[in-house]
Amino acid sequence: MFDAAESDPRLTAEQAKPLEAKLRTALLKAQYARLKKADQSLLIVIAGIDGAGKGASISLLNEWMDARHIRTSAFGEPTLEERKFPFFWRYWQKLPAEGKIGIVFGSWYEPLFKEAGKKKPDPAAIQEHAQVARQFETMLSHDGVQIIKLWYHLSQEAQVQRTDKLLSNPETAWRVRPEDIKVRKKFARLRDAGALGISLTHSEHAPWQVIPSADEEMRSISTGQAVLAALRRPVREHIAKERGTETTEAAEAVSVNALAISGRLHLAEPPAPRLQELDYHVALNDHDYDQQLAMWQSRLAKLTQSKKFEKLPLILVFEGQDAAGKGGTIRRITHALDARQFHAIPISAPSPEELAHPYLWRFWRDLPGPGKVTIFDRSWYGRVLVERVEKLIQPAQWQRAYAEINHFESQLRDGGALVLKFWLAITKDEQLKRFHERQSSTFKSFKITPDDWRNRKKWDDYTHAANDMFARTDTPHCPWHVLSANDKQHARVAVLETIVSALDKSL
Amino acid sequence: MFDAAESDPRLTAEQAKPLEAKLRTALLKAQYARLKKADQSLLIVIAGIDGAGKGASISLLNEWMDARHIRTSAFGEPTLEERKFPFFWRYWQKLPAEGKIGIVFGSWYEPLFKEAGKKKPDPAAIQEHAQVARQFETMLSHDGVQIIKLWYHLSQEAQVQRTDKLLSNPETAWRVRPEDIKVRKKFARLRDAGALGISLTHSEHAPWQVIPSADEEMRSISTGQAVLAALRRPVREHIAKERGTETTEAAEAVSVNALAISGRLHLAEPPAPRLQELDYHVALNDHDYDQQLAMWQSRLAKLTQSKKFEKLPLILVFEGQDAAGKGGTIRRITHALDARQFHAIPISAPSPEELAHPYLWRFWRDLPGPGKVTIFDRSWYGRVLVERVEKLIQPAQWQRAYAEINHFESQLRDGGALVLKFWLAITKDEQLKRFHERQSSTFKSFKITPDDWRNRKKWDDYTHAANDMFARTDTPHCPWHVLSANDKQHARVAVLETIVSALDKSL
Repeated sequence: MFDAAESDPRLTAEQAKPLEAKLRTALLKAQYARLKKADQSLLIVIAGIDGAGKGASISLLNEWMDARHIRTSAFGEPTLEERKFPFFWRYWQKLPAEGKIGIVFGSWYEPLFKEAGKKKPDPAAIQEHAQVARQFETMLSHDGVQIIKLWYHLSQEAQVQRTDKLLSNPETAWRVRPEDIKVRKKFARLRDAGALGISLTHSEHAPWQVIPSADEEMRSISTGQAVLAALRRPVREHIAKERGTETTEAAEAVSVNALAISGRLHLAEPPAPRLQELDYHVALNDHDYDQQLAMWQSRLAKLTQSKKFEKLPLILVFEGQDAAGKGGTIRRITHALDARQFHAIPISAPSPEELAHPYLWRFWRDLPGPGKVTIFDRSWYGRVLVERVEKLIQPAQWQRAYAEINHFESQLRDGGALVLKFWLAITKDEQLKRFHERQSSTFKSFKITPDDWRNRKKWDDYTHAANDMFARTDTPHCPWHVLSANDKQHARVAVLETIVSALDKSL
Repeated sequence: MFDAAESDPRLTAEQAKPLEAKLRTALLKAQYARLKKADQSLLIVIAGIDGAGKGASISLLNEWMDARHIRTSAFGEPTLEERKFPFFWRYWQKLPAEGKIGIVFGSWYEPLFKEAGKKKPDPAAIQEHAQVARQFETMLSHDGVQIIKLWYHLSQEAQVQRTDKLLSNPETAWRVRPEDIKVRKKFARLRDAGALGISLTHSEHAPWQVIPSADEEMRSISTGQAVLAALRRPVREHIAKERGTETTEAAEAVSVNALAISGRLHLAEPPAPRLQELDYHVALNDHDYDQQLAMWQSRLAKLTQSKKFEKLPLILVFEGQDAAGKGGTIRRITHALDARQFHAIPISAPSPEELAHPYLWRFWRDLPGPGKVTIFDRSWYGRVLVERVEKLIQPAQWQRAYAEINHFESQLRDGGALVLKFWLAITKDEQLKRFHERQSSTFKSFKITPDDWRNRKKWDDYTHAANDMFARTDTPHCPWHVLSANDKQHARVAVLETIVSALDKSL
């Protein structure tokens, strides 16, 4: 894999100069074209042998292109704050918006290359690291982020020569970092680790490219050429999305198939609850409601004030038909919480900034830390509900979303969070009754919009989408709690009880 | 101050019901009107006696209005992460955008009321806390943030009664927090602390309002009315800004006067450097440059890798005429830094999101933590340079900005940061030469735009603005370093030397 790079190819200044001039002009032109089109971003992942000139190459890209539209993010060991969140959290925060370029140094590949570079690496850990990187990149590339990954490489002799030369001159010795020196003792291991990591994570939509780095001119020109090629060649998947060539049926067939094969399509036992089968007659009288509400709120208050809770991030997701009573239920929960520990987030149509990022981006930004609660009033499931039914996205996109969401929620769980998902279900008649009530109330009429009536006409489509969603995202680690909300009092108490039981188990 | 509230006024349910219905309709209407106009935000600060129902009032506002456009932020004791930044940092992060409403619980008043409520309060500390709160609010209110502050109050008897009643019933006892009980032992002190804090920080643009809280109906209606009144009455200052009634001369006279009186107009001794007086002939030959550059870079590298630096946030600000060589100078600095420790931020015209917030907001978001470096390529000084000269803002706004900037930088220093401000100065002839060079280079021509030529025509205006800026923002804690950049090599070395010397002193 590294034969060409380890032959340490060089360019003379005479060869490089005209190439560089052309490259810079072309890069700028391509950068501005992408910026103008603003339909996808470019993420450049930097990795490779230490002391090969990675840092200099980052500076170079910032110099050759318009740095105002490039965001360079360099990550070291995760900070204490970063450790409180799932592994990918800090990378999500720094994703470039559509039209922009992001350069990532110290990326999600660090753990993979570190493990692979050990004297006795753990093959299972390597596979695991590679898999999460692949999943992350697949999702990004589907969502308008183009990815290229550059591996800076040179022969062992060249690496030693380069650092020795810098060291021999007191004016340049400071450029050599301790890790650059360590390379010489374990060059073979690092090279093999690189080769393994690359082969495990190379893909058409997020390709690796090896940059020969022994010679500065060669390294610079190769870097520029790699970036230029990427800027000029947008992601294929993205084009398919725009053209909208796939049919619903075909996509659906492929997707369910793929999910079943990959084992991510979890068919729960007992079968996932379906909206039509729910008992909508359960109800709670006023007296029982008052008593039980206070009891569960009291227990919730105690649990969330407990010492153990300080280590747990709690995520509550509320979905359901319009007018199902999500807001009222959420207020019964927050009533038992300390105002400083929760954040309730109503999710509506995405802002322009949010639209310019992968669709999960906005949710990553609002994750709770330990001892905190985030309550999502509607959520990432909009992708497979309203966006699917209203045809705001292509079938391939929402089909893919089931696996993406399951993967997202796995990461939340792996990061230590407790995730509880509720669907408040009402019948079509009950909804009509509530719509009329809202319309006749001056101060509730804002809660009913033409959208609500429009959605109601698609009742069956939404029911179908919801049932599909339960079947595909009702995972063992994040099951759906589907509850009748025809009686608001029953629903509120049932939700509180579910939260308290889950906390009891987790703490 | 609290006589009316401590008479514990009440409303019967019959009185409250029609009032509430009207209020809710009016609040929604006013909220949507503000949202549509989107010319200023409303910030509601919540404070008062514990156990008076503050939390319930926050829920109420979220219920009565459209919660999707309200951002409630509750702050507790600062976290370890928050302690790394200046005191106001976390509040800046949560400011509502124009058109939106923010509710703040656990605000910047906590230290003030805490100090004032001590058995032996420190009057100087109280004054200090009050002053920073006033300065913060004055700036926000000038910048499109309307502020109201609600103090929830009730008599001691009512507070005891209320908590006792809750405690006596096992179903409600959990609602009483430890701090609600502690109130009874020190009610008089807390009341006096409240009265003192309010009187020190009440102002026309950020008024306090006392909410009688013994009775739930009364508390709810009073809260709603206070918010409604605010929504209906926009900030006066803001109207003046839109109408643009002030003339430059009048504003200038007033402002300089005010600055002099407040003592914030720092006339440096020796006098602030002026662009016309600079020696533009200093230069460095190639040999000396190579040697000195490497020497200073080496020292910078060592200092920023040192143990002591891990505790210091470093902020570098670069201003100067177009084509003065800021980018090249910055690259010579970053070359000596670890990619993981710095963030270089080119500042150009604000995004729509940034425009919807006070102008310092975007800079607060990019402050470095300890051991990190943020390099601003152009900065908050745009307010008194391009925005002033191009008349993008009213004279009153940029006049005010000197004091606001000085205050901002004081907070950075108080938060432990080292702030170094550089002006790279070139002569008009040198600029012309560089413009022509850029135009004739295919890959540098993007660096020269019609804007640059337009700015050049206003050379004298910019010089005047820069000299004013030096005179008014060259503070002892954050002095300006004005350097000739007619010779790039000289400028680069001089900047590096200044940074190294300042670090040497600080570490």
